[in-house]
Formats: sequence, structure tokens, C-alpha cells
Amino acid sequence: MLCFLSDYTEGAHPKVLAHLMERNLVSLPGYGEDADTEAAKEKIRRECGRDDLQICFLTGGTQTNRIAISSMLRSYEGVVCAETGHIAVHESGAIESSGHKVIALPGHDGKLRAEDLAALMEGYLADDTREHMVRPGMVYITYPTELGTLYTRAELTALAETCKKYGLPLYLDGARLGYGLMSPLSELTLRDIVELTDLFYIGGTKVGALCGEALIYTKHNMPSHFMAIIKQQGALLAKTRVVSQQFDALFTDGLYREIGSHAIGLAMRMKEMFRAKGYELYIDSPTNQQFFILTWEQIERLRKYAAFEIWARLDERRAAVRFVTSWATTEQQLDELESVL
Amino acid sequence: MLCFLSDYTEGAHPKVLAHLMERNLVSLPGYGEDADTEAAKEKIRRECGRDDLQICFLTGGTQTNRIAISSMLRSYEGVVCAETGHIAVHESGAIESSGHKVIALPGHDGKLRAEDLAALMEGYLADDTREHMVRPGMVYITYPTELGTLYTRAELTALAETCKKYGLPLYLDGARLGYGLMSPLSELTLRDIVELTDLFYIGGTKVGALCGEALIYTKHNMPSHFMAIIKQQGALLAKTRVVSQQFDALFTDGLYREIGSHAIGLAMRMKEMFRAKGYELYIDSPTNQQFFILTWEQIERLRKYAAFEIWARLDERRAAVRFVTSWATTEQQLDELESVL
Amino acid sequence: MLCFLSDYTEGAHPKVLAHLMERNLVSLPGYGEDADTEAAKEKIRRECGRDDLQICFLTGGTQTNRIAISSMLRSYEGVVCAETGHIAVHESGAIESSGHKVIALPGHDGKLRAEDLAALMEGYLADDTREHMVRPGMVYITYPTELGTLYTRAELTALAETCKKYGLPLYLDGARLGYGLMSPLSELTLRDIVELTDLFYIGGTKVGALCGEALIYTKHNMPSHFMAIIKQQGALLAKTRVVSQQFDALFTDGLYREIGSHAIGLAMRMKEMFRAKGYELYIDSPTNQQFFILTWEQIERLRKYAAFEIWARLDERRAAVRFVTSWATTEQQLDELESVL
Amino acid sequence: MLCFLSDYTEGAHPKVLAHLMERNLVSLPGYGEDADTEAAKEKIRRECGRDDLQICFLTGGTQTNRIAISSMLRSYEGVVCAETGHIAVHESGAIESSGHKVIALPGHDGKLRAEDLAALMEGYLADDTREHMVRPGMVYITYPTELGTLYTRAELTALAETCKKYGLPLYLDGARLGYGLMSPLSELTLRDIVELTDLFYIGGTKVGALCGEALIYTKHNMPSHFMAIIKQQGALLAKTRVVSQQFDALFTDGLYREIGSHAIGLAMRMKEMFRAKGYELYIDSPTNQQFFILTWEQIERLRKYAAFEIWARLDERRAAVRFVTSWATTEQQLDELESVL
Repeated sequence: MLCFLSDYTEGAHPKVLAHLMERNLVSLPGYGEDADTEAAKEKIRRECGRDDLQICFLTGGTQTNRIAISSMLRSYEGVVCAETGHIAVHESGAIESSGHKVIALPGHDGKLRAEDLAALMEGYLADDTREHMVRPGMVYITYPTELGTLYTRAELTALAETCKKYGLPLYLDGARLGYGLMSPLSELTLRDIVELTDLFYIGGTKVGALCGEALIYTKHNMPSHFMAIIKQQGALLAKTRVVSQQFDALFTDGLYREIGSHAIGLAMRMKEMFRAKGYELYIDSPTNQQFFILTWEQIERLRKYAAFEIWARLDERRAAVRFVTSWATTEQQLDELESVL
Repeated sequence: MLCFLSDYTEGAHPKVLAHLMERNLVSLPGYGEDADTEAAKEKIRRECGRDDLQICFLTGGTQTNRIAISSMLRSYEGVVCAETGHIAVHESGAIESSGHKVIALPGHDGKLRAEDLAALMEGYLADDTREHMVRPGMVYITYPTELGTLYTRAELTALAETCKKYGLPLYLDGARLGYGLMSPLSELTLRDIVELTDLFYIGGTKVGALCGEALIYTKHNMPSHFMAIIKQQGALLAKTRVVSQQFDALFTDGLYREIGSHAIGLAMRMKEMFRAKGYELYIDSPTNQQFFILTWEQIERLRKYAAFEIWARLDERRAAVRFVTSWATTEQQLDELESVL
Repeated sequence: MLCFLSDYTEGAHPKVLAHLMERNLVSLPGYGEDADTEAAKEKIRRECGRDDLQICFLTGGTQTNRIAISSMLRSYEGVVCAETGHIAVHESGAIESSGHKVIALPGHDGKLRAEDLAALMEGYLADDTREHMVRPGMVYITYPTELGTLYTRAELTALAETCKKYGLPLYLDGARLGYGLMSPLSELTLRDIVELTDLFYIGGTKVGALCGEALIYTKHNMPSHFMAIIKQQGALLAKTRVVSQQFDALFTDGLYREIGSHAIGLAMRMKEMFRAKGYELYIDSPTNQQFFILTWEQIERLRKYAAFEIWARLDERRAAVRFVTSWATTEQQLDELESVL
Repeated sequence: MLCFLSDYTEGAHPKVLAHLMERNLVSLPGYGEDADTEAAKEKIRRECGRDDLQICFLTGGTQTNRIAISSMLRSYEGVVCAETGHIAVHESGAIESSGHKVIALPGHDGKLRAEDLAALMEGYLADDTREHMVRPGMVYITYPTELGTLYTRAELTALAETCKKYGLPLYLDGARLGYGLMSPLSELTLRDIVELTDLFYIGGTKVGALCGEALIYTKHNMPSHFMAIIKQQGALLAKTRVVSQQFDALFTDGLYREIGSHAIGLAMRMKEMFRAKGYELYIDSPTNQQFFILTWEQIERLRKYAAFEIWARLDERRAAVRFVTSWATTEQQLDELESVL
């Protein structure tokens, strides 16, 4: 059975596992105060082109979002995002459970627009009752978005400038960052993201690691006593090494980029395969999540050979489906898929 | 350099890593709804002698404590523990950050006494102002304790009965459970713990896993929508398999018990070594944490050969130190330690 | 200067103050355990036609909403309301600060529709990822709404039935309940509200009291240890008598109803006055909040004589304004207003 | 029946009620943005001798403590107090419910000692695991204490200096401040308290108001958007005037001081009465709470004539009891009490 359900359906990239294995018996102090963790940070800093980044290794995306957001907001502030944003839809209220409102604005193919943000802020500032309202306190975006789309350089720059104008930190959720950056249509590099955001995370879980995300504060703005902050939320690993060693492997010899390229190449091939067979695109995604429109009969038939997600029920006859590639996807799997399309 | 700093200074037991490796490329659905996770639960249930246990795999101890405790308490309730309890001292206020008071009672070698608990409850119930007080809502203990000690069967039974009498769920933090159960002085088995507690966790991080704890509700008392509860706290792993596959290995062919026995054997040998050389015990611990009294000169000298923790400053001349063994400790390391004592 | 800014711009109805004065020197125990508080509850129960209502006196609307809602929801649940709902817009994130998402649905003249609620619930229940979503856990409505409108009997009954179908408690915010119930267009009585809701509050602050709201659980569903719950949120008054004595006065000889009738009578006269002078209605409100469309020039001129709120900027030329009557408004004030319209 | 249960068993001082009455029909904007609220702040500033104090009127003591403390602490910080502190014992976990640990140190007649605080801080700073601990973030004291006692000038100065040394804001709960300041044994004035603390509150509820406390930030340290902060916690009164007008009355013509003097005078007379009749003091309190030791028979007999609180069960034969005077206590009531002692 082929599996295109998601990019977290297998374990870790073999090189990641090999590195864990290699370092397994080395004795290191706990809680991230070890040499391996420092080494991994150094490699990430080098790739980002900045030696002053403050980095923290965490375990998963929702955990990272909850910590990143609550670490930047004051009690009466909320976080702005597109209505399709992961924090607005699929985190079981993690942000609210930390005390903060998620202020959802219309999404445009999953993206938040600078002009919508500016309008929100102007409305807030002009409102005489604003002290009775939640103050927009930061902005959350994803790259690529939940729909696989990418901000253009102009779009992200406009957002970043709007954020700066209104004093809002810009936070980028990079759960699938590797698959975004390596898209041939990406107008942005890792270094651009470092410059344009106030904090962001490099996703590991979906890009080759067993688990783990690297949360990065780009403007010397990591709150003090950050270790206590993450400990308090249950996110401090005794063996932080487990995550940092994986990031060491991912940022050695360009593995993170290689994984991205591999999955994007296969995703583009997949898109062409579907198109060639006459299927319609639901979204024209330039990244590793591909969305097609299938009839229920087609879905029924394909499911005998491959696992994939039904994304949205369109009507009586058709649904949108999602096929995802990853580091673990192979050309041979695509060959097999092609043969049953 | 020898390392006796803690039981989380290396990666994972080789068999655990091997199992991760073996299952690495198998495609499985995410969020704990996979066959490997179910298999691990089954192995734990078998070891516990109960096929109806509700089990959830989490990443670390503080996370598990925060979730276990907040899942059982109503907003105005607190959790009772010994003043040395991990949640009272070393979790950066994780319990309070979830809204609940930690009610610390005197500890006796790290243990909470049934009579102290009963006195607290009688005082609370007799107090006319009790609606203005935090209601004791559950009890937290550790096995072994933070001081390496073990509840006797009589002690734990008395506590459990007192809890039942006052309607308090009893929660046991088993971060080092394997090292407790396999002590020759342990009067309790895993099955006893299942019977006597309402919920407990089997620690993986300190007993051979890269990371991970198995939280177990023993009385069909896992709150409904528990997946949403842990998601909300940032504790739901996309690849829950990473933890559950490790527990599968730990509960295959008695590995968890084997790890415990191994470390306890070495700890007992270490205790004898220190005694034989004339050192005094700080606590006579029957588990893998050993506490000795050393002069500052002895500490200074030993530190050239071995890493260990200074537990408590006793006076101008002496301190209590902690040496910890684990699955990763070897007889050869003890030989070396002996040679420099 | 005339004041139509709101219904909380004066102190208390003279009879309320007189009753406070009369009881001032009577010694009573604190924290709501006094005879006067019991007497006030009895009067409310009688007016509601039910001798088994559980009642609690609180100080203000946001406080009451925060307590009522958080007392009914589990951690992973949110509260559903119309997008114009007070909790969604004007409570500075009080609900989120208690850990819960406000799930806003489209409002229809400020009202939530049963079909929109049903659609939300069907979508939630059909969604395979629902454990990653906030579970709708209760419903919040206002009567009258923030736009002065009233649910018809059919509308409220449909909502209540939909709530029951999906197991959602229905909570009614009655900040201006007196002004709603006494509208000639109200199809609902206080007794209907008791029957159709699971909890609601009778607003005092805006209906003749110095401060205070009566939160009522209608189905024996007040959480246990409720005193501790409100104490913990800082809402337990040492002198609860201050609020309950006011409610005693409001529910003596029909004063609460009389206040409602008085303000509604004046509001209807005001509406006719504006209409007669050719002004357009922004909303045709049957209660004490009246909304008109004025040009900016008209606003400028009127503001010399009367204080009122600019509700919404409509365009370059016009705005919607709000004029509010209350127990404190007089016929003479309306005469004066009429003379300057 | 005489009532010495507490200082909140009657309504308000007649002059306070009279002022409410006098201002009742004046139309004022809501939420504390009215002239009467500004006038009350001015009067308090004058009495405090500082025209730059930031003041906020709230409704009750627990609410004020919860807001004051959570407004000053970062998420991983706790508040230090004496073990008898109100927040540690009698606020149903309000501080913990806002996410913060209450760190209780030994009390000495209800007072926190500078040396105990310094020892706590030195221990914290010397602890290598301090990032795993709750960081002491501010200090809470009461004046007078829960036991009626008063800090000497030297004691409070030492505490304030210790706080400054370790960067801890000092917060003083003045629920009964008027009764403390007017004790002939008070070495401190209101102005001293302004200088020595970072924030404090002047209690109204127990000193002549129907309800209300004035929270004062003394060092230009009120957090920005404070209105949103209190709104969010349900503490913003639409009619803030109700509290501020009462404080206006209390700070007109020395009424607050007069109330204090009156109650203290009666308390001293009461102490002498008990002593003269041979009763033993439980605590030698210089303020309006008096504590005596009575046998159970004496208690039984006295209770026929007077209400008072049993403070602590001492042994089979005796208990400590509390008698409280207030603005509402009269010489005649003491005459009656004397006749039945």
C-alpha cells in the first residue's frame, strides 16, 4: 500500500538516525546545556548566515507555537493569523489555553495580506472602545501555508513592514520550511526569513527528524529565563540532545536542503502525472503538498492502492484530496502511483 | 571522564535504538493512532496484568505531571505532595502555571505519610473557612522518591487507603520506576502499583529511552477527549510512534526490568565501594541514586575523574553528593571509580 | 447637557439606594451567607416561578460571563456566539484569558441562528480531525442583543432545541434583561427564559443598581464548591449584601419590571420623535437602545445638547448613532431632546 | 445580639452613603473615565503627599491581590509571603489560578522577616538548578497583618531594602490599612508606605465602604493598557464611580483616619476590658482585631450575647477567639459586652 497521507508517516531520514546512533553512548549533561546542542545551533546559525541567533530545540509544532506566541504577548494581547492558520483551526485551542485570542483574518490561498492586517490595526486604533478589545499583539504566518502555497518576496516584505509599522512581532511557523524553501518557485531564502521575521521555527518533524523543531529568535529578543518558560510548559527535554543531534545531522552537508529538493521534485512529478491523466488541480501548490479534485468513484478506486487525505467535500460528485511527498517518498512509489491513476 | 551525573546523560539503550531503526521506514498514521502504538500499549498492559488500562505516550516528566494533574483537578483544587516532591521544587512552577496550588506536606526521606495527609484533610474539613481555601484534590508521590527511597507496601497501602477515604485520586510519578521496582528492597511490583494508584507513569527517559513516558489511568478514569487535552498543552507528537516504539522495545523480553536490575546491581556495588573506603552515606538509598558525604577536598579531587552532582552543602567542611547509575553504566566504569576513590 | 450615552451613566434607582440605606446598620455575616442575600434569592425565585433556582450575586457583566462560561466548559471546549456577541468583541479577551476559545458565527441583527449552530456542529462531528479542533462546548446569547434586538419565541426555542440536541448548555447574558422583557415586542417572559436556558443572568448594573448581576443556574447545574470558584476569580464580595440588597429592592413590588417599562416607553417615544423629524433608523430596535442614521453635520450640532455614542461610521456623510434610555431618563429630557432635533 | 465577627458586617459609613446619594443622579461616563473618579484620585494623592500616583479602583481584596500580583510577575515567577499571608491561605488559590506560585516563608506574628527573604534569595541564586525552580519575583505583605500586628519602621525598611537589593517589587495589602495607620503603635504613616512600597492598596471594604479598594502604583510602574488587564479579569466596573465616590467621601475631611481612630480606640478599650476581667491575650494586637484566650465554657456563655470568631482551637479546654471593631462599633456595644464578660 502506497502512503501519501502526510510527511510524518515514517521515522527519520537514515542519516539522522545514523547520527543519533553514532553519538548514543557519549555522556552529555542534560537540558540543552551540552556540546552537541551547541554544535547544532552553530550549524543552524551558519546556514542562516547570522552568528547571533538565539535558538531553542523543542519537540513539536503546536508546542513550539504555544511557547513562541505566549512568550511574546502580554496578557491582553492576541495573535493575528489567516483564518486557515494552523493555530486557528487545528491546535485544539492551544493558544487560547495559554490565555490569548487568535484573531483570524481572511486567508487568500492560505496567506495573510498586509492590507488586511493594516485595516485591522487602523480599525483597532480608531476605535474608542479599544481598551475593551483584545489588542492585536503579534502576527502568525506559515511558510509554506497549510495549503502548500508560498508568500512572494513582495508579499512577505509588505507584511513585515506592516508589522514593523504597528509594532507587531512577526512569527513564521516553518513546520514544512524545508519543503517551502526548496520549491523552485520560492522567492525567499532562509536568510531572507531570518531578516524579515522576529522569530520563526525550522520544522524537523515533517522534514526528516523523528521529532523536533528549532525555534529561532532573530532579533536578540528571546525572553530572559527562557529555560524556565519552556520547563513550565512541559517542553524542556532532559535529553535535549535527542533533538539537537538530529538537527546537527539535518544541517550537515546540506541534508535539510537535500530532503526539501527531493520531496519537491517528486511533488512536481506527481502534479504532472495527475495533470497528464486529466485530473484537475484544487490548488496549484508549488510545494510538497499537492491538492487534486477527484470524483468519489476515483477516490474509491485509488484508495485500494494508496493512502491519502480527503481534504474537502466539494459536492455530491467530487472532493478535493491531498497527496504529500517527503524525504521518504521514492521515484518507484510514484511509478506505482502512476500505474494506477 | 567518568559520568555519574544522572541517568539521562546518554542516548537510548541499544535495543531501543535498534527497534526504532527496524521500524523506521514503515508508514504509519500519526498522532498515536497507529498499530505500533497499540502494540506497545498491549505489551505494557500484559506486564501490568490488566488488559483494560488506558495509556498515553508523552515526551517528558514535567509534561506528564502537568497533564496528569491538571486532567484530574477542578479549578479550585490543589495537589498534595511531600515538600521534596519534584512538582514542588524542580518544575519551574508547571503545576501553578496550569492553575493549581501545590500543597507541600513534610517529607520523610522524601516520602509522604498517610497520617500527615489525614491530618491535612481533617483540618480542611473542620475549617469553617474552607471555601476560602484551596481544596486538596489529589495526591502526588514518586517511586522511587527524589531521594532514592522506596515506600514500603504498608506505607503505600496506608496512603492509598487514606486517599480513598477522602476521595483523592493517587498519582505516582514513576520517572525512575524501573530502578525502584528492581531494587531488592522493593516490596512492590508493577501490578501492585496498578492496583494502589489511580494513575501513574512509567518513566522512559531515565530508563533507557531517548525520551518518553507512558501515562497510565488504572481505573477507567482517563478524561474523555484526552487527545484534545494533550494537543492543547503541546504534548501530542505527530510521530507518537517514536515514543511508543521505544516502549515496545522496553517491554519486550523484559528489557525494562533488565535495565533496572543492571543499574541497581551497580548502585549497590558502588555503595559498598564507598562504604568500604570509609565514606559515610547521606541517605541509605536502595535504588540507582546514591548519596554520600564527602569533604570539599575529596570532592575537588574526585572531580578530576568523575562527574557527579553536589546535592547539598552540609557545612564548611562537607557536602552531600549524588552518584547515579543507569542502563549505560558499566562494571568497568565502577572499577575505574573504585581506583580513584 | 442631556446624556443618552448609556444606561450606566447614573447611580442607582432611588428605591434601591433607599433599601441599602435602610439595611445599612444591620449586622450580617459576610460572603453571601446572610439572611438578606437569602431573601433576595427568594424574591427572584418567586418572580421566576421556580423555587429551586441556584443563584449567585456578582458585580459586573464581564465577570459574570467569565465565571459562567468557564464554570461550564472543559479545558478543550469553546463557547459559540454571534460575531457581535459581547464576549467576542468587548471583553478584552476575558474568555480567552480563562483558557477558552470564542467561536464566532455570523450574527443576524445581533442574533445567533439555530441553523448556523447546527451546521457548525454537523461540520465538527463530521470532521476526522476534530480532536485537533476546539470542541464547541456551550452557547452564549444576549437578550436583548448588543443591537437592541430580541429573539422571537420561535428563534429562542429553536436555539434551545439545537443546544439540547448537541448537548450544549445554553447561556443567556441578560445585562439589559429588564429592558428586553418589558418591550411590547418581547415574545418571552422571565419564566420562558428560565425554562429555555441552562443558565442566565439578570443584569442589575444597567437596570437600576449601583452594580451587580444575578447569575442563575436553572437546571440544578451550579458546579459544586461554587463559592471557591468565584473567590478564586476575585469575584466573591465580603459584603455580598451590597448586591443582594439591591436585588431585593429591584424585585420588590415589581420595580425591575417598572424600570424596564419606563425606559422602553421613553425609547419608543424617542424613536417616534426621530422618525417624525425625518431621521432614518439604523436598526429598528424594540428596546432601550435606539440606533439612528445622522449626517456628520447633524451629529456635530446635536452634540452641543446631548451626549450619545457614535456607533458606526457609515460613509463620508453619515454615521449610525446610539441613544440609550434607562430608569434615570425623564420625559422632560425627551422634551428637551425633541426641541433640538 | 452584639456582633464582633468582623469589620465587614455592616454596610457603609453614613457619610459614604450620603455622598453616593448626593451624586446619584449626576450623569457620568463609565469605566472610570469620569470626573468623580478623577476627584477621588486627587484626594488620595493629596493624602499620600504625591501628585504622581497611578491609582485604580477595584471591588475587593482578593481581586486586587490577584490583579496586582499577576500584573507584576512574569510567567515563571512566584510571589513571596509569610505563611499566614492571606494569599497563601484564604483566597481559594486565586494567585495560583493566575499561574503563579505562592512561596510561603515562616511568619513571625504574621510578619515576613527581611533575613528570611534574603536567605531565600541567596539560596535561589546559589542553586545550580534554579532555572528549574520558580523564580521569586515579588514580595507580598499585609499591614496590619492577618494577626493584627504591625511592622515597625525598621522592619519595613529592612524588607524594602532587601527587596530593592534583589530586584523584587514590594506589594502591601492594606485591606485594613486605616486600622493599622491609626494605631498609636504604628510607626508608619501613609506617606511612608508610599515611599517604601512599589504598589499597595488602601482597603475600603473593611474601613467604611460598601465595597472597594484603591490600588496604587507608587513608582510610575502601572503596566500599560491596565484597563484592558482589569477588564479581562472581570474587574472593571461600568460604574467605577460607585467605588470612587466612596473613596472621595473617605478621603474628605479625614474620614478614613477618623474611622481608623474610632475603631482603634474601641479595640484598646476592649483589650483592657478583657485584661481587667482576667482573660489572657492570644496576641497583643495594636489594631482593630483583638485575640483572646477563652475556655470553651466561656465561649459557650459569651456566644449568647455576642458573635465573634473562634480563631484557633488550642487544646481540650481553651481556644483563641477574635473580636473585631470597626467604624460601626459603638461605645454602648462595648458597655454591653463588658457587662457580660
